[in-house]
Amino acid sequence: MSKEITSREKDYSQWYNDLIIKGGLADYSAVRGCMVIKPYGYALWENMRDQLDKMFKATGHQNAYFPLFIPKSFLSREAAHVEGFAKECAVVTHYRLMNDPNGGGIVVDPEAKLEEELIVRPTSETIIWHTYKSWIQSYRDLPLLINQWANVVRWEMRTRLFLRTAEFLWQEGHTAHATSKEAEDETIQMLDTYAEFAEEWMAMPVIKGVKSINERFAGAVDTYSIEALMQDGKALQAGTSHFLGQNFAKAFDVQFTDKQNKLDYVWATSWGVSTRLIGALVMAHSDDEGLVLPPKLAPIQVVIIPIYKGDEQKNAIDVKARQLLTDFKALGITAKYDDNDNSRPGWKFAEYEMKGVPVRIAIGARDLEKNVVEVARRDTKEKITITLDGLAHTIFVLLNDIQSNIYNKAKKFREENITKVDSWDEFEKLLDGKGGFISAHWDGTPETENKIKEKTKATIRCIPLNNIAEEGKCILTGNPSRERVLFARAY
Amino acid sequence: MSKEITSREKDYSQWYNDLIIKGGLADYSAVRGCMVIKPYGYALWENMRDQLDKMFKATGHQNAYFPLFIPKSFLSREAAHVEGFAKECAVVTHYRLMNDPNGGGIVVDPEAKLEEELIVRPTSETIIWHTYKSWIQSYRDLPLLINQWANVVRWEMRTRLFLRTAEFLWQEGHTAHATSKEAEDETIQMLDTYAEFAEEWMAMPVIKGVKSINERFAGAVDTYSIEALMQDGKALQAGTSHFLGQNFAKAFDVQFTDKQNKLDYVWATSWGVSTRLIGALVMAHSDDEGLVLPPKLAPIQVVIIPIYKGDEQKNAIDVKARQLLTDFKALGITAKYDDNDNSRPGWKFAEYEMKGVPVRIAIGARDLEKNVVEVARRDTKEKITITLDGLAHTIFVLLNDIQSNIYNKAKKFREENITKVDSWDEFEKLLDGKGGFISAHWDGTPETENKIKEKTKATIRCIPLNNIAEEGKCILTGNPSRERVLFARAY
Repeated sequence: MSKEITSREKDYSQWYNDLIIKGGLADYSAVRGCMVIKPYGYALWENMRDQLDKMFKATGHQNAYFPLFIPKSFLSREAAHVEGFAKECAVVTHYRLMNDPNGGGIVVDPEAKLEEELIVRPTSETIIWHTYKSWIQSYRDLPLLINQWANVVRWEMRTRLFLRTAEFLWQEGHTAHATSKEAEDETIQMLDTYAEFAEEWMAMPVIKGVKSINERFAGAVDTYSIEALMQDGKALQAGTSHFLGQNFAKAFDVQFTDKQNKLDYVWATSWGVSTRLIGALVMAHSDDEGLVLPPKLAPIQVVIIPIYKGDEQKNAIDVKARQLLTDFKALGITAKYDDNDNSRPGWKFAEYEMKGVPVRIAIGARDLEKNVVEVARRDTKEKITITLDGLAHTIFVLLNDIQSNIYNKAKKFREENITKVDSWDEFEKLLDGKGGFISAHWDGTPETENKIKEKTKATIRCIPLNNIAEEGKCILTGNPSRERVLFARAY
Repeated sequence: MSKEITSREKDYSQWYNDLIIKGGLADYSAVRGCMVIKPYGYALWENMRDQLDKMFKATGHQNAYFPLFIPKSFLSREAAHVEGFAKECAVVTHYRLMNDPNGGGIVVDPEAKLEEELIVRPTSETIIWHTYKSWIQSYRDLPLLINQWANVVRWEMRTRLFLRTAEFLWQEGHTAHATSKEAEDETIQMLDTYAEFAEEWMAMPVIKGVKSINERFAGAVDTYSIEALMQDGKALQAGTSHFLGQNFAKAFDVQFTDKQNKLDYVWATSWGVSTRLIGALVMAHSDDEGLVLPPKLAPIQVVIIPIYKGDEQKNAIDVKARQLLTDFKALGITAKYDDNDNSRPGWKFAEYEMKGVPVRIAIGARDLEKNVVEVARRDTKEKITITLDGLAHTIFVLLNDIQSNIYNKAKKFREENITKVDSWDEFEKLLDGKGGFISAHWDGTPETENKIKEKTKATIRCIPLNNIAEEGKCILTGNPSRERVLFARAY
């Protein structure tokens, strides 16, 4: 093989980095903590974005765009928000450079200091709610259902490509409602949308739940999330949806007159997913040979590779391949014919395996005579010889099968890695062993959650929405508990 | 009418602002020079972006994403580039905020000063060519055809919504080639792509040309542009395509081995259009009643408004309207049925006129009995009564007709406002009068262009690509000239 990948067993973290870099998804950049999203990675993001965007629009949302910069004072308006976000930020203090009069190249012009510093948005609640104040006067202006696709910056100290970067791409929905009920329904609707996207499109099973106070978004009344399980037994928060109550409306004085002509503060939600989903997708399905991408999101669903000697064989294969490309296109299948003669078939096989292309078709001269091709599926690595008659339809069905198969595989893994635990010893042992989600009783206090985190690095990932009431004793304190919650170490 | 618009004659600049604000395209923000793009404006941008993106992909380009921040030292690498861009920039100097120990709220943490300041990208040549160094080794890695959709920041002192804002959205193509010829061809190909988009989609005629040295992009060997004419007689640069030679490859040491195994620097292009196009679109076609949008880009192509008394009439109209929506959808026409009963038909008529919706259909109860509707086209304001039989097809044809009509109207205006001028007096008089493009001789020196700019605020917009050689004398100096160039005052 052309590019070595570290195995998961040897070094899971290095395996992940190898996949991202060697699979051509992203690259490190000259700016600390910021990544370059390469064309193959960006094509994957475009597929995710386009599908999510459709789902947002189908539920009545519109896109808009708000400024990159937030006046520093805005962050202080909402008391909890400032604690959460006014920390590791990129701060713009000046607006001009100049030539150093002492010949030291270009320097910041000390005369061009901003009166108030600007923060590069870590999230946009504040600038958006400042704007909503002038957009909302009456119940007729509600609901306001807006989404933004944007870049945001959080000055993280320890970064990982896609999973935690200083700059990342995301969408942030910010909605305004006349009643608490309507805002709560919206919060759950978007959580459900995220779960549907994760399961149907990413083939990644998720658990929907509500966050404990410790893990709540800064400024939210309630934070909901979808939680996925990675192959190393660590959890990954894949999307969040927040019910913000009237917190931001009060902070930015956004009131409306209702049908009875009474003034009230507006109810709010916000919700987001980011390029972090690419990291989740990679870790959910890939193996030691490279990426495994779900057909519904793969930038290339099928690659066709010719195997030939001499121009005559090549020409015959070309004709067939081009016909297949047309057939695939008609069925909405994205296919690529790689007849680049700079590299050999074996190299290409490894390359597309690395890149996680769901289906590989090899066409040889002898195959053509027999009217067959060799089809290899990336998920199971099975190879089968298939007739060329109706091949596009066969592949169409196969792609659906691959989509289901990788979902089922991930689901099975997830089910095998949710463990009910009732003793502290077992809790610690499991975390240092196979990990996964641990379903355990908790006394409901932030203090206990903090202690558990200090001792084990595990946090409460969520309190599942479909939870069953069950009397029990807290795994750490032995205090009474009414339901189990899901603990895990997390990305 | 519900919202007053200043007439063009009274105050062209206020007319423009009224359209943007009252048409619901954008809003001012809390951050100096930054705008909020409202849902209607953003939907317009999405339509432009999606079409351009298709055209870029059809010509072999792929999207990627590079960091928002550029290390300050990168700007200095290319001598001309630093002069052009290391001026009015947003400069990030710190990465953390803290609570003021003296109780003054949150302040910048003086301990968290960056070793090297980061510039919020005003354009991305430097960070991208730094990256290309590690992506390009051999001719096999070329051409590299990459585009990025992103936000950029230039700290403009005088801003105008869409036309000149501190932050704006754009795309920037950055390509790398093995030969000068290939890069020059790419430069022209993208100029042609922009011209095609402007004319076919925006219905806005443009002149393709090359820039004089004064107006060249900082770091380019040659800058090409498309230039449009606005209704006040001022020109607007709507897109640029730069042949960068080997300037950035040399600045960032990007070399490749060619087929003969010889090392050479890579040849480059860059090209971009931005949300400024929305400003151009607005000023190219709109009138004193509001926006006039070309059907091919309008977020809503057809609006249907019911006119009724009582539920019985309303129900009958509803049934018909929903049928029409289905018919329109089948033909790919974007239609909206506005049966909101909070506002009256007259208010709605004015509102959609303001928003530039190309076709308005009014359905009354009596019309239904006669199997007709009233159709009003936004461009000419003609109203006609049309049979409901085959209405969707009629509207389909009408939309195409509107698209052609507004293009032809703008083209006629442009043709009437290109004036050949051979004396300085006439040159000045024309600029203070009807304006437009002035085709005049120029001695080819930057000094003369600067003097003309000082005297008249007019600049050379471009030297048209289809220019005819013609001996003459410079309009200012009387020195010999070999061709006419196009002067204008510009946005």
